[in-house]
Amino acid sequence: MRLADSFRSERFGAVRIHELQRVIELDSGMSAGAGSRIVAPDELHAVESQMVIVVPCMNEARGVIEGVLSGIPHDCLIVLVSNSDRAPVDRYEIEAQTVEQFCRLAGRSAITVHQRDPGVAGAFKAAGMSELIDDGGLVRSGKGEAMLIGMALAAMTGRRHLGYVDADNYVPGSVHEYCKVYAAGLHLADSPYAMVRISWHSKPKLRDGRLFFSRRGRSSEITNEWLNRFLAEYSGFGTEVIATGNAGEHAMTLDLGLKLRLAGGFAVEPYEYLDLFEQFGGVLESTSADVMANSVPVLQIETRNPHFHDNKGEEHVQGMRMQALNVLYHSPVTLPSVRQAIVDFMVEQGALGIGQEPPKERLYPPVGTLDLDLLYDALDAEALSFRQPDGRVAAGLSAAPPIDRAAIPRRVA
Amino acid sequence: MRLADSFRSERFGAVRIHELQRVIELDSGMSAGAGSRIVAPDELHAVESQMVIVVPCMNEARGVIEGVLSGIPHDCLIVLVSNSDRAPVDRYEIEAQTVEQFCRLAGRSAITVHQRDPGVAGAFKAAGMSELIDDGGLVRSGKGEAMLIGMALAAMTGRRHLGYVDADNYVPGSVHEYCKVYAAGLHLADSPYAMVRISWHSKPKLRDGRLFFSRRGRSSEITNEWLNRFLAEYSGFGTEVIATGNAGEHAMTLDLGLKLRLAGGFAVEPYEYLDLFEQFGGVLESTSADVMANSVPVLQIETRNPHFHDNKGEEHVQGMRMQALNVLYHSPVTLPSVRQAIVDFMVEQGALGIGQEPPKERLYPPVGTLDLDLLYDALDAEALSFRQPDGRVAAGLSAAPPIDRAAIPRRVA
Repeated sequence: MRLADSFRSERFGAVRIHELQRVIELDSGMSAGAGSRIVAPDELHAVESQMVIVVPCMNEARGVIEGVLSGIPHDCLIVLVSNSDRAPVDRYEIEAQTVEQFCRLAGRSAITVHQRDPGVAGAFKAAGMSELIDDGGLVRSGKGEAMLIGMALAAMTGRRHLGYVDADNYVPGSVHEYCKVYAAGLHLADSPYAMVRISWHSKPKLRDGRLFFSRRGRSSEITNEWLNRFLAEYSGFGTEVIATGNAGEHAMTLDLGLKLRLAGGFAVEPYEYLDLFEQFGGVLESTSADVMANSVPVLQIETRNPHFHDNKGEEHVQGMRMQALNVLYHSPVTLPSVRQAIVDFMVEQGALGIGQEPPKERLYPPVGTLDLDLLYDALDAEALSFRQPDGRVAAGLSAAPPIDRAAIPRRVA
Repeated sequence: MRLADSFRSERFGAVRIHELQRVIELDSGMSAGAGSRIVAPDELHAVESQMVIVVPCMNEARGVIEGVLSGIPHDCLIVLVSNSDRAPVDRYEIEAQTVEQFCRLAGRSAITVHQRDPGVAGAFKAAGMSELIDDGGLVRSGKGEAMLIGMALAAMTGRRHLGYVDADNYVPGSVHEYCKVYAAGLHLADSPYAMVRISWHSKPKLRDGRLFFSRRGRSSEITNEWLNRFLAEYSGFGTEVIATGNAGEHAMTLDLGLKLRLAGGFAVEPYEYLDLFEQFGGVLESTSADVMANSVPVLQIETRNPHFHDNKGEEHVQGMRMQALNVLYHSPVTLPSVRQAIVDFMVEQGALGIGQEPPKERLYPPVGTLDLDLLYDALDAEALSFRQPDGRVAAGLSAAPPIDRAAIPRRVA
């Protein structure tokens, strides 16, 4: 893979946000050259073999899921976290079968689990995160919660990297590119605490009966604008460096991931930026001297493929937009002038009554605070949806279950 | 890349048509396994470094062309054959600049040429193919003619493989998959005379204001049906083996390509099948004892990515469909009962008057009959649109023009 060089970055404490870099070639062969950065196949492979790809999934068609799986490089471990309907048809069973069959064909292993399995709720409670559980005794339904479950499973495998890929993607080649970009970015970042966030090239939309390739998402524009305003208010210099505030497709080192506090629902992606600023921005006191001594590079990479997925409608987008502003408003590192401007904007948008305060989004403790041994034992004993399909034996290889109970890493946070 | 195994094939003389195989994984890592065929990265690379990718191009947007180029693996050589408008805006100049700029960024070289350049017509005339020239003294405008020019340029480079990728493709990841499939198929075919034809997974279409993923193209269904009927009439067994009659995306060894007679316009793709049957089917006498002693495997591979391109409209499709039937009707190896059925079908479709005969499509002599030294010298001297942009120097590498005048292979047919 060949990326354009990134020459500029903005610092905020230990966090170094690199300006958007473009993908020049999906496959750069064995070549070298000036003016761009090449990540060679063996370098990509080294990261992929340490990477878990978490696929949050909600009621996607079997064929779409199959396509997504086919795009994930062989050496990445697939973790599917489903929040699909279980009645009248048990869609999770269909998904789990799809993953199992794919693993058999491809000679690989995977993990699948259902977010609303009572055994999953019990396990997270036992492991020390009762915040995740709703009044009905199940893990809450949001996307952030699915990502948190996926991160905990990833941590148990002992692998070093974690990437997210949404299941509602019609283009397997774009999934493939996302994973290669994660590997290339994490290789180039060369830090134990690094994040790679994707900005898709374009998003095909129906407009007046024909396709239009929109460059920016409706919600991303606003999220990015306000995150940049947050930075500018500190530096005194206007900036457009943040282009990936809502990036659903992103990856990070698990060393970083396990320290992050994830937000619930669709606040999760923009809040990752805020948590980086809160924990490693140097404004508040940091609990992680080792991170502050290193730095936290955030690479932003524009893919070549369009992001081509199902249209979730206007309500979904408005919700995402406001959740981003809610976390920005409530962050202790956001300066008062920005907070006031957010309220004015939300009132103007009709999203907030005059005199009201933006609602608080749910924030969870770092996954690194979980007792992973307890989590595994409880999942194994109680969570009926927890599966580790292993297609390696069917392919004539020796079995290698993704999680080795005896080798689950100790808690790190 | 991991492909499903192909267990069945149909023979027609030396031609062995393999049933459609699916892509299971875009990237199969370094693994092995039963029940499927893996082509390892170094095996893909070995084919790619001997492959020319010809991109026929007609009035595509700069951004779309850039995307297509970014998906072609670095070690393949790009040849762009344009038939774009040159006035009021010279679109070919924009395309040539796009290729040149991409080569500079990616440190690679390429060839570009315009189909309707008078110097190109002169060169093909000098090299021995005046059949290609129309009454205005220029190379005819069809797609088959663009592919023929591309094949001749590919032959001059001395590389061993040739693949075609249409320029009107919105998904760089699918271009990437096509090229990997070509490499995997040619590797597995393991014959000096082999062809790989792609059946795309699906084609997104607008229907009632939403997207529908159609599995089969309108014109492909009819072309395939009649090609299969052609085979069945010989064998006495109905078959559905041919699934790629209209495949625009296909690749072959140049040893095979240089022997083929290409048809003009949109008849080119289905006629490749017929020419294989005519030359190597054992019905007519073959002029190629070496091919008959080998065999000609035709691999058909279903990609994972949807084929997502501009809608060219109903007229284009009807034209393609009838051109396929025209060549089938006029082939000396088509049995009389099939010829009669074609006429009946065309009359029923309103494409032919009662008592009329289907028109003949234009067929060209094999590219292997051209004098490539003369062709090169004439292009170099007279064809103003003939360029060999070399971005290797800009990238700090030593220059390596794609065509080495002193090393142009001798004519083979």
